[in-house]
Amino acid sequence: MLNNWLNQIENMFDQMVEWRRYMHQHPELSFQEVETPKMIASILESFGIEVRRNVGERGVVGIIYGGKPGKTIALRADFDALPIQDEKDVPYKSKVNGVMHACGHDGHTATLLAVAKVLQDNRDQLEGNVVLLHQHAEEKCPGGAIAMIKDGCLEGVDAVFGTHLLTKVPTGFYGYRKGYTMAASDQFAIKIHGKGGHGASPHETVDAIAIGSQVVNQLQHIVSRQVNPLKSAVVSVGSFHAGKASNVIADSAELIGTVRTFDEDVRDQIKREMEVIVNGICSAFHATYTITYESGYPAVYNHAEETEAFVQAVEKNIGEDTLIEIDPSMGGEDFAYYLKQKPGMFFYTGARNESIKAKYPHHHPKFTFDEQAMVMAGKGLISIVHHYLVSEASKAEKKSDTEAEKSFI
Amino acid sequence: MLNNWLNQIENMFDQMVEWRRYMHQHPELSFQEVETPKMIASILESFGIEVRRNVGERGVVGIIYGGKPGKTIALRADFDALPIQDEKDVPYKSKVNGVMHACGHDGHTATLLAVAKVLQDNRDQLEGNVVLLHQHAEEKCPGGAIAMIKDGCLEGVDAVFGTHLLTKVPTGFYGYRKGYTMAASDQFAIKIHGKGGHGASPHETVDAIAIGSQVVNQLQHIVSRQVNPLKSAVVSVGSFHAGKASNVIADSAELIGTVRTFDEDVRDQIKREMEVIVNGICSAFHATYTITYESGYPAVYNHAEETEAFVQAVEKNIGEDTLIEIDPSMGGEDFAYYLKQKPGMFFYTGARNESIKAKYPHHHPKFTFDEQAMVMAGKGLISIVHHYLVSEASKAEKKSDTEAEKSFI
Amino acid sequence: MLNNWLNQIENMFDQMVEWRRYMHQHPELSFQEVETPKMIASILESFGIEVRRNVGERGVVGIIYGGKPGKTIALRADFDALPIQDEKDVPYKSKVNGVMHACGHDGHTATLLAVAKVLQDNRDQLEGNVVLLHQHAEEKCPGGAIAMIKDGCLEGVDAVFGTHLLTKVPTGFYGYRKGYTMAASDQFAIKIHGKGGHGASPHETVDAIAIGSQVVNQLQHIVSRQVNPLKSAVVSVGSFHAGKASNVIADSAELIGTVRTFDEDVRDQIKREMEVIVNGICSAFHATYTITYESGYPAVYNHAEETEAFVQAVEKNIGEDTLIEIDPSMGGEDFAYYLKQKPGMFFYTGARNESIKAKYPHHHPKFTFDEQAMVMAGKGLISIVHHYLVSEASKAEKKSDTEAEKSFI
Amino acid sequence: MLNNWLNQIENMFDQMVEWRRYMHQHPELSFQEVETPKMIASILESFGIEVRRNVGERGVVGIIYGGKPGKTIALRADFDALPIQDEKDVPYKSKVNGVMHACGHDGHTATLLAVAKVLQDNRDQLEGNVVLLHQHAEEKCPGGAIAMIKDGCLEGVDAVFGTHLLTKVPTGFYGYRKGYTMAASDQFAIKIHGKGGHGASPHETVDAIAIGSQVVNQLQHIVSRQVNPLKSAVVSVGSFHAGKASNVIADSAELIGTVRTFDEDVRDQIKREMEVIVNGICSAFHATYTITYESGYPAVYNHAEETEAFVQAVEKNIGEDTLIEIDPSMGGEDFAYYLKQKPGMFFYTGARNESIKAKYPHHHPKFTFDEQAMVMAGKGLISIVHHYLVSEASKAEKKSDTEAEKSFI
Repeated sequence: MLNNWLNQIENMFDQMVEWRRYMHQHPELSFQEVETPKMIASILESFGIEVRRNVGERGVVGIIYGGKPGKTIALRADFDALPIQDEKDVPYKSKVNGVMHACGHDGHTATLLAVAKVLQDNRDQLEGNVVLLHQHAEEKCPGGAIAMIKDGCLEGVDAVFGTHLLTKVPTGFYGYRKGYTMAASDQFAIKIHGKGGHGASPHETVDAIAIGSQVVNQLQHIVSRQVNPLKSAVVSVGSFHAGKASNVIADSAELIGTVRTFDEDVRDQIKREMEVIVNGICSAFHATYTITYESGYPAVYNHAEETEAFVQAVEKNIGEDTLIEIDPSMGGEDFAYYLKQKPGMFFYTGARNESIKAKYPHHHPKFTFDEQAMVMAGKGLISIVHHYLVSEASKAEKKSDTEAEKSFI
Repeated sequence: MLNNWLNQIENMFDQMVEWRRYMHQHPELSFQEVETPKMIASILESFGIEVRRNVGERGVVGIIYGGKPGKTIALRADFDALPIQDEKDVPYKSKVNGVMHACGHDGHTATLLAVAKVLQDNRDQLEGNVVLLHQHAEEKCPGGAIAMIKDGCLEGVDAVFGTHLLTKVPTGFYGYRKGYTMAASDQFAIKIHGKGGHGASPHETVDAIAIGSQVVNQLQHIVSRQVNPLKSAVVSVGSFHAGKASNVIADSAELIGTVRTFDEDVRDQIKREMEVIVNGICSAFHATYTITYESGYPAVYNHAEETEAFVQAVEKNIGEDTLIEIDPSMGGEDFAYYLKQKPGMFFYTGARNESIKAKYPHHHPKFTFDEQAMVMAGKGLISIVHHYLVSEASKAEKKSDTEAEKSFI
Repeated sequence: MLNNWLNQIENMFDQMVEWRRYMHQHPELSFQEVETPKMIASILESFGIEVRRNVGERGVVGIIYGGKPGKTIALRADFDALPIQDEKDVPYKSKVNGVMHACGHDGHTATLLAVAKVLQDNRDQLEGNVVLLHQHAEEKCPGGAIAMIKDGCLEGVDAVFGTHLLTKVPTGFYGYRKGYTMAASDQFAIKIHGKGGHGASPHETVDAIAIGSQVVNQLQHIVSRQVNPLKSAVVSVGSFHAGKASNVIADSAELIGTVRTFDEDVRDQIKREMEVIVNGICSAFHATYTITYESGYPAVYNHAEETEAFVQAVEKNIGEDTLIEIDPSMGGEDFAYYLKQKPGMFFYTGARNESIKAKYPHHHPKFTFDEQAMVMAGKGLISIVHHYLVSEASKAEKKSDTEAEKSFI
Repeated sequence: MLNNWLNQIENMFDQMVEWRRYMHQHPELSFQEVETPKMIASILESFGIEVRRNVGERGVVGIIYGGKPGKTIALRADFDALPIQDEKDVPYKSKVNGVMHACGHDGHTATLLAVAKVLQDNRDQLEGNVVLLHQHAEEKCPGGAIAMIKDGCLEGVDAVFGTHLLTKVPTGFYGYRKGYTMAASDQFAIKIHGKGGHGASPHETVDAIAIGSQVVNQLQHIVSRQVNPLKSAVVSVGSFHAGKASNVIADSAELIGTVRTFDEDVRDQIKREMEVIVNGICSAFHATYTITYESGYPAVYNHAEETEAFVQAVEKNIGEDTLIEIDPSMGGEDFAYYLKQKPGMFFYTGARNESIKAKYPHHHPKFTFDEQAMVMAGKGLISIVHHYLVSEASKAEKKSDTEAEKSFI
């Protein structure tokens, strides 16, 4: 049975490309999506799928009711674009100045639409339901996932899956990992308030550059001394700006930076210790400070059982040699919120193909991906659904069907 | 005799004001002075003084030949303006947009012109000559003094004196100090070249902010550990700029700052140790660097004997209670170059008068000085010339003259 | 069949206690073991086991030849003691002043002797051989493992296993982990050579304390900036000694510390970067230095397949609920060397029992362990041997035997 | 007149040597002086001088009453020795093991005794009185001066003078300086209380070495940024001790050091800022601390008028070319307390003579001084007394006497 489904998704390649390229030409920024959700909803409806619009304000949720009772599996694709100028030279280049699908969300959406069609067409064989989560605003904090969850998109769902096209991995492979897969990514801004004055009279000032430099220096202490060495953590100051003239002591210094962690307790610890350190250093030198700490998405944690299910589904149906166990990434994803509510997992679908210049990193103005990867992404998602919603007996039966079919070839 | 001279300078007050205000309305930037030297030269010539133009390109040198042989004393006044917008509300406000006499050089020039007139009128009584150094470009490195000296302005000179109007000191007082009076002021720019990268992957980068912060931190070591504690020195980083984003590790950091010293050996030591430190820190973390060290004016060193001569001349002729021994200033002056060639000294003439808003610091857009201070400045210079170029016998003789005159009043 | 074996090891409990307590009373320090290996060898020989003495100088290797051909499995137990004064109040307290079995090696040895007896008695059923590695000098670098390996103890061995009694884990449980389980532990000593002098004249000195403090500070940079945040690493300075008097600047400073890592590349990186940093800081301040870096044992890396084998063997034969997956430990073990040569794994056997004061940490003067843990340790090792050296058919067959036996009870 | 006096002191050379060598053989430690003050008192009494014993517990005060009314001038000599083993090979080597006059106080005392004799013999010519301050315990805080002052030794005194033999300056010269001449010397001890633990688990500790290193680092900030660059200051950490083992994180760190300043306000500022910094750094890292700050002697400040008096007296009577204006020294002296109560000054008497090995620094086990320097020291003190207590008329009169005398030669 599954082979049929996989064939059907392969056959939808041209359609996926058409959807994807249309979206690519008409990108919409996070929290500003208007036309994209409309398009998604009407396509889903054209398949006969029940649709809820404006979920969490801009999301679209479709539901495929299986022919038999069983679990409910959710599949998610995000559809927002980035404030980047498209520098590719292709006919389907972005038509919106300064806005571009530079992270592959157009591909995610096209894939999920095709998956929806295949599953809807085969819904009688499903022992359970499939929820299609078309999510807005993944690129921008606080992200669309939180609002869609609040709006009930996970109600009744037993497990949730998603994928991301990735140009680091060649087309034809899946990257995955059990447990922490993507980091929590927070941002901080520290402003040191000293007292300016003449560069020749440091004793009449509170030197914000000298103090800010100490803060940078002492923040190293968090990772090197305070965090459990078995846990990963990064504290990076990405920007330090203070002062204007060589002979004037700066009255303030601005530091901004990023914190990456997996464990929530480490994340809390760093946020807490950062302020303790800044407070201590400033008080040591009569300076004051303000800290703004913005928590980004939490870490993406792939549940053990669902990861195992994904691996088994892919090994059996697509091929063991397509699986690559990867290191966690320090990047962030608001898919993390779904996984805090429900079991599930998030995998990467390789989309690198140097021969067609699908080699640029995500968020690059020349970013593009190998469109064949959409077929792989779709096969992965369908395999998961098959794993959960088609019972062993049915699988076995259908398998002989398939063999029967094969024998006619 | 001297009392006559001092009276004469008092009587020139209106003329000084006129000259000064004309210059104030027509300021010229350093190394761009064209009309000002012309005006000075023609005024000096109108007194019958021999004039050399274009000395060191833009300076004007006048020579007053005394009636008897003796020493040659040089007096200096600078005449350039600053790139500052005049914000005063006075009729003689600057007519040149963005250019202003915000440091009192107009007053210096008017004073020296008046002093020249008085001395020229009394030249028969002088036992020796007076050289008038009207210098361009004091405000901007490398300054006009160096060029004028190279062009011979100090040839045959035995001692050189100068004064600066100062709004920190009230009108009616002179500020002075033996030995180091103003600091050498150098400027440095350090650029740290690291290797940029993602904020989540510090191990793939060379973090220019972390390294730059260490450089700021370690530069403190120069003053605290390496310079003789009996010698004054300042190393201040006035500006630190690096990075643009919170989650991108900066590939470079730019630090600029100032070094203030008195002793030349300390100055050399700091320049040398700065590079040793930056080199060490960068090599510790695989960064490279460039340092640009611009030596500004050397320290102004008032010679002991000439300072004593100034003090005696003022005590005797103007009043002991007009003298204030002051702390050295960390500001710079290219008068330092004259004092490296010839004995001499540089004193301050108080020009503060809050009642007429002559209270702003130098280089302030509302800077102004008490014009009466020009009389004090002139008296100081004339007293010095009298001290050197009128022999004791003449002084005594003339003193009785004066007393005689007085008795007639 | 296995159940018989497990019963047999249970029945050896009193013997194990006797052996263990004898060793406990007669401990021998690392590289000074004379009587202990003699005792071990004679016991093994008393079972009819072939013995090689003086392996790697002081180790003892026994070989049990199975009745049928197959793989060769090595089991290791260490037998050296520590330079610690026994503070327990028990009849079998150490009789050697200042020397004590404070890490449980006496228990390891007694366990392996009992295991040897059981396997030797059942050797006909073994499809392959068992190598007994009684190792000296685990507590002291470079350890006995290296010498024994060099002396051929692993020749012909297919996989190697070992266990450590652990008072952190309660008796009745096994702690294990795939991959890195114990850290590489290296030691460093950094000596900063400055130039001493009077505390009032820092400019005539090179202040070893100021520079040493910078070194401590900058070593933090290694973990916080240079090591991949996904990899664990610790750099700790444990001792800093410099100077004698308040008013004398120290001419040298001595820092010693420890480095803990799992990956060899991270280990190499830290060793390398440590010298780069020390060199950079010292050159920044005209100091020189010497670094001594002593590499300790490498990390213990449990191979995936052998770990899986251990888990399966324990789950099937002893009980799934006896297994605890644990975090890696930052402690070191020279078992690491065996795992660099052969596949294998190293597990912990819980030995905590608060009711009998078996609760102190290892290396504590009151350390003791629950002697029942020796039975668990023995069962674990025997299960592994059974897993490898008894074929499925035999297992099945014997299983029905067992059931048959049971039915007679 | 003065020439007679100077001749008389020259003639006492042998007697001074005898006294000095006796003291040298019988040194007594600070606050343990018993025989030395007895000896001094009985010698003074043998001259007919009125003596007060046990002043401030161990000091001796003599008073010479001049023949005519006038001012009262105090002269001070200290008489305590040091806990140093005499390593000289001379007949008058110290007879007390481990105790030695290694700072020349024996010479100071012998000199003042001889000066007392000369002045007592010529007391009829004195217009005023001379107070002889033989002080105990200069070498050890809190010093004897404070107690003697409290006990009234300066009552009625108009000005106080003292000298120190100095092997840095050749015999035949005086070193002097107006204003600050010797530094205030304070001592501090900082103890950082962290939390110890295993070197592999920094996250469970508060690393006292890492924090102590930051304290050393940040203390540099005081001199480099907080103290007026025109003022001298030194903060040196002379000793840093923490930790015992490479793999144990230290739970505490002990830093001790010295602070040298001239101005009292800078001294107060450093004491204050030191605690602010230590407090800030410790609070940044969850450590606590204790600071002990022991104020030593204040700075020796030579008053302008009395310094001028010394210079004039020496120039006129001994020779202008014997005077060397010297840099301030960072060493301390409790003579400072006298100068806080009364006008006065403290000068150095050169005592270097390489031909007789009088070249070692003070407090060296081979320290010795040129005994001829005692004559110079005596002449200096007598000249001062003459300057103050012999009126101009007498001086002139006596001068002609002298000339008359000379004409007879």
